[in-house]
Amino acid sequence: MPPLTPKALIFDVFGTCVDWRGSIIAEGRALDRRWGTAVDWPALADAWRGRYQPALDEVRSGRRPWTILDVLHRESLDALAPSFGLDKLDEAQRDHLNRVWHRLTPWPDTVAGLTQLKRRFVIGPLSNGNFALLTNMAKHAGLPWDVNLSCELYRAYKPKPESYLGAAGLLGLRPAETMLVAAHYSDLQAARACGLLTAYVHRPREFGDQPKNDLPADPNVDVVANDFEDLATKLGCC
Amino acid sequence: MPPLTPKALIFDVFGTCVDWRGSIIAEGRALDRRWGTAVDWPALADAWRGRYQPALDEVRSGRRPWTILDVLHRESLDALAPSFGLDKLDEAQRDHLNRVWHRLTPWPDTVAGLTQLKRRFVIGPLSNGNFALLTNMAKHAGLPWDVNLSCELYRAYKPKPESYLGAAGLLGLRPAETMLVAAHYSDLQAARACGLLTAYVHRPREFGDQPKNDLPADPNVDVVANDFEDLATKLGCC
Repeated sequence: MPPLTPKALIFDVFGTCVDWRGSIIAEGRALDRRWGTAVDWPALADAWRGRYQPALDEVRSGRRPWTILDVLHRESLDALAPSFGLDKLDEAQRDHLNRVWHRLTPWPDTVAGLTQLKRRFVIGPLSNGNFALLTNMAKHAGLPWDVNLSCELYRAYKPKPESYLGAAGLLGLRPAETMLVAAHYSDLQAARACGLLTAYVHRPREFGDQPKNDLPADPNVDVVANDFEDLATKLGCC
Repeated sequence: MPPLTPKALIFDVFGTCVDWRGSIIAEGRALDRRWGTAVDWPALADAWRGRYQPALDEVRSGRRPWTILDVLHRESLDALAPSFGLDKLDEAQRDHLNRVWHRLTPWPDTVAGLTQLKRRFVIGPLSNGNFALLTNMAKHAGLPWDVNLSCELYRAYKPKPESYLGAAGLLGLRPAETMLVAAHYSDLQAARACGLLTAYVHRPREFGDQPKNDLPADPNVDVVANDFEDLATKLGCC
């Protein structure tokens, strides 16, 4: 096998870089104290995320014109609010809660690992999150991205090929010079089909105590790492 | 006057953040030693940059479809090469020289000033440089951008309104929450017409010993600063 020589690493974000479920639960419980609500936050987090792929599918299929994730998240929240005792929230409260996705918390190794990887590679998020969401998240969480490669820039949600190829193209790189890092095999398989290198990172706690509904290990992945610091070691950033 | 409350600062790059002329001269003289050439580098730098606005105008006017700056720079270089004793350069040498625009050197205060400003604001380049050029320049020069807002993303070269409004839009901000920082009044005037805040930074050495052919001081600029550290102080980043 030839040595891996990516010039840029592009990252899935929700679940791979940040703990969306744990963040929503933690911030939600703080909001309960402020707002006097009593929400089942683990159930709301799962239901909210459960509407994510179906909402994206409406856009991917062309049944709906390009719509950024902030809007899709808000529609899902409004639909779920009555069942979770949140129907009395006013507009400012709903907007604040919807933007919890801008304030997600990184996994413990994320910032240290990215900081190591940044010394050797261009690093940036390739996420279905909109550009502002990813910008605000990076400021909030201290994610040291070089660039923001949001799918909003290509108006194509992953796993559409235009997203992976669009990111490599903006960077002026061939797909084989670009590596996708993700905790989900489906994302990596789509990137590989576009000619990108791939790195799988284990994130066993993405769904809390629930097992991850992922595919069996894929032997076609170029690197498998336990976390971002392990990835940095395996890519020679010691 | 209400207090200035930008949430993001977006920066002109060539001349404002980096010393394009001095960088080309310094790198060119090193190339002379390597390649055995004897180029009048100050004259080449000025002639190369002199073709910049006319080349952009072809695209701005719609006479030519969208074309990234790397391509425009290369066409200008190829046109100038015979007059500067560079017609014998091979393809690899021409490509290397053309990418000197990816390796420009910051002014002495640039990195320190941006580092201060980044603590309080989202910072990113809004430049006619293509995305890869700006990404590579940031890695080379240590420019600590949060995001890359290249005009390539809007397919509209400054001073077209789509560039300023496109950058604010991607950031999820109103124009009045976004401040353009530039060493050129024409850029600031176009941004102001779109509703952005504006900061002028003096860069008296942009053209070496030649005086800057700029407009008289514009009283409609929101902030005037001597350099980026002075700008940070004036925007309360102490």
